[in-house]
Amino acid sequence: MLDQPHKVALKALVSDKGLVENASDMAAYEKGARYDEGRAAFVLRPQTTEEVSAVVAYCVKNSLPLVPQSGNTGLVSGSTPDASGTQIVLSLDRMTKRFDLDLDNRSLRLDAGFTLSEINRRLEPHGLFFPIDLGADPRLGGMIATNTGGSRFLKYGDVRRNTLGLTVVLADEAGTVLDLNSDLRKNNTGVDWKQIFIGTSGSFGIVTECVVNLERLPRQMATAYLVPASGAHVMPLLRAMEERLGAYLSAFEGMSKNAVSAALAHVPSLKNSFQGGNIPDYVILAEISRTWEPREAEQSMDAVLESALAEIWESDAAPLADAFVGPAHEMWSLRHALSEGVKHLGKLIAFDLSFRRGDIMAFCDHMKAEIPQAFPEITICDFGHIGDGGVHFNLVVPKDSAAASDPDFEKRLRDFVFSIAVEKFKGSFSAEHAVGRKNQAYYDQYTPHAVRTLAAGLKAITSPGALGTVRF
Amino acid sequence: MLDQPHKVALKALVSDKGLVENASDMAAYEKGARYDEGRAAFVLRPQTTEEVSAVVAYCVKNSLPLVPQSGNTGLVSGSTPDASGTQIVLSLDRMTKRFDLDLDNRSLRLDAGFTLSEINRRLEPHGLFFPIDLGADPRLGGMIATNTGGSRFLKYGDVRRNTLGLTVVLADEAGTVLDLNSDLRKNNTGVDWKQIFIGTSGSFGIVTECVVNLERLPRQMATAYLVPASGAHVMPLLRAMEERLGAYLSAFEGMSKNAVSAALAHVPSLKNSFQGGNIPDYVILAEISRTWEPREAEQSMDAVLESALAEIWESDAAPLADAFVGPAHEMWSLRHALSEGVKHLGKLIAFDLSFRRGDIMAFCDHMKAEIPQAFPEITICDFGHIGDGGVHFNLVVPKDSAAASDPDFEKRLRDFVFSIAVEKFKGSFSAEHAVGRKNQAYYDQYTPHAVRTLAAGLKAITSPGALGTVRF
Repeated sequence: MLDQPHKVALKALVSDKGLVENASDMAAYEKGARYDEGRAAFVLRPQTTEEVSAVVAYCVKNSLPLVPQSGNTGLVSGSTPDASGTQIVLSLDRMTKRFDLDLDNRSLRLDAGFTLSEINRRLEPHGLFFPIDLGADPRLGGMIATNTGGSRFLKYGDVRRNTLGLTVVLADEAGTVLDLNSDLRKNNTGVDWKQIFIGTSGSFGIVTECVVNLERLPRQMATAYLVPASGAHVMPLLRAMEERLGAYLSAFEGMSKNAVSAALAHVPSLKNSFQGGNIPDYVILAEISRTWEPREAEQSMDAVLESALAEIWESDAAPLADAFVGPAHEMWSLRHALSEGVKHLGKLIAFDLSFRRGDIMAFCDHMKAEIPQAFPEITICDFGHIGDGGVHFNLVVPKDSAAASDPDFEKRLRDFVFSIAVEKFKGSFSAEHAVGRKNQAYYDQYTPHAVRTLAAGLKAITSPGALGTVRF
Repeated sequence: MLDQPHKVALKALVSDKGLVENASDMAAYEKGARYDEGRAAFVLRPQTTEEVSAVVAYCVKNSLPLVPQSGNTGLVSGSTPDASGTQIVLSLDRMTKRFDLDLDNRSLRLDAGFTLSEINRRLEPHGLFFPIDLGADPRLGGMIATNTGGSRFLKYGDVRRNTLGLTVVLADEAGTVLDLNSDLRKNNTGVDWKQIFIGTSGSFGIVTECVVNLERLPRQMATAYLVPASGAHVMPLLRAMEERLGAYLSAFEGMSKNAVSAALAHVPSLKNSFQGGNIPDYVILAEISRTWEPREAEQSMDAVLESALAEIWESDAAPLADAFVGPAHEMWSLRHALSEGVKHLGKLIAFDLSFRRGDIMAFCDHMKAEIPQAFPEITICDFGHIGDGGVHFNLVVPKDSAAASDPDFEKRLRDFVFSIAVEKFKGSFSAEHAVGRKNQAYYDQYTPHAVRTLAAGLKAITSPGALGTVRF
């Protein structure tokens, strides 16, 4: 346990209500929004970069371990304390003061504690948004630490692509503040240091302020369900859509029959709009969108989508078995309900994988053959962002099975899935959730020795103090 | 001069014709395509990553300085040897074997020695291209070392955004080969090391192989000259165009009257299509494009552009004084001839600056007031990529003036322009040409101490050997 004097000293470094120590108030910081639970020594809630710097300097000098925490919505134990009760949580949740919109530059300079939903609520009147589309509602600092992508990556890219600048506090004895907070879109005057802090789980420094790129809000969109003629036709279909719809294409999401069935069975608000209620083996949700209001002389978005689909339908490649344009709200409701539906089937073991786009269906086919043999109790309920190579490869075991209560089962399963994903298919074991405590062993296993050595060297020259949940 | 034994040893490490030492053959490697001239000890032209590794290891062990060189088309002395005759040039120009196209992934894995034009010539039959649009014809390795942007950055981004993976040889005693050659679009499993080698002039390692993102070739486009009502109307005009044309908008290039006049006066193939031949004070070249072939039911691109311009014309902001849609080829010919035209006016001193978009016109106005007082012999011929904040701030002195032959003049001018661009307007002194020997002093001057210290630390843990033209 921590010495009382340290607590007193740290309390003095953060403004009013900046230290949380009673058990009921701490609970929200000890438990992840979706997974994880640990125990914190106490929680610090600084309000400014200067306070973060003072706290970090004190902790480094006194060898006190800090875990930066943002929205705490991740899946890989990247922001919860461990079970020891010795780690101090540094929450960004009060870093929500600065919010400076630059309309000409189409950029926003803001403190790192804002939630995604609050950012977009404030931007909406200006016809702008921060274009990372997620099911969860993280805070910005955590989005940077994980480099999230989301459902419209295909059009807008990930957090990295939309980050212009950062202010970062390093975990050294000075609590050095790095001002990497350029608002510039082009600037090649040395190492682009901000890149080091994106997607690295907060272990190299604590992001306190950001400048992000904004995009115009879509004013028109159209969506369709596309049923590929077979798994092998998914890529020809994607290529045909990209050719015929170009920058209009804003989502190309794959959904397996198991995932769709679970959602339709367990989420009562959903409507089964498939022909005769028959759910296809695999279905794509495609979306096109554009930023301007409808013009009289222009084809509607529905008509644009229908024209492109008619061309694809008549092409020699014949990648489509079926397709229908339908209401965006209804189609996205199904897509967004997949996670919830799958959870009703049993205990969910989630994998956030990515592949070269052409390998996604091959990986899923491979696993459909292998998993029933190695893990017969498992149901595969995959879905994902086919357009950018991401797969939410979700596996479910019945809640009353021996596997669900076997503490080793999940580890064996992860070892198995990752070995095939990474070794056989050259994929990634973490597409958009970064490393975290949960993936530490896989980072150690799958990162080449030379790269691990460099990372350790980088850690030593940036933030030698104990920071975050990952050992680089 | 170098010892003969070193030359013999290095010659044995590169395949046939891999060492160039006679003066006439070396000349092409000693002189930049547009600027610079130095003297090399000799030139090595390896053909594989393994050869690069062997060469680098030998040079580091024997403290021989290496300058990696790609297309040598840069503006900042980033790839030419200095005047000492002791630096060894390592050219990528024979690294042109591997060229593996992945159509499903819309990506290309290739050796770093390919020229941009050759890459796009090979991709054209597939309806794809590497979307960096430049006047020069660099090789890929150098494009990565400078993180070039170009005229269509607004739509496609820079080299960084389009780089999926790299293979890099570090300048350490082992000639360590880093395989950062993921083909993945999403992968957050630790530090994204490739970022360190993008835009850093080859000083942290030599890029030998790359995986890049490709885009679909445009099949339809339309262009217009837009004359803003005043300099203050340029940003409202850009915002209105982004709102009404969204992802169609692929270029928004500004051209000053001086630059346009110089091109029209000195490049005979150009046509003056401005009304009555009167060149506006400032004119924007806007382009929209899309990837599919024309469809009967759809508005033509010219009509789309005209609709948007009509809406802008009638809007309350009234940012337009004049606008006319015209042939893309003719309009781009003028844009691409600006550099050549300006050179006819005298000795060109080129600046590659960037700003927040809203500061571009303010900077130019400020300089139009300041420069005539401080440097009366100068003509300002600016043009640039307004859509992404880039300005080619070109200054010309008469060839027969005292300034043109005064060796200190250029330095005084650079100091003056950079002090205002960087200190007053928080801009960048190198938007898309990186640092190079030419900008070393400004890197030293304008980079915060903490950041320079980190860069020196990074250099020590990656490539401690003498590599490149920049001291980080």
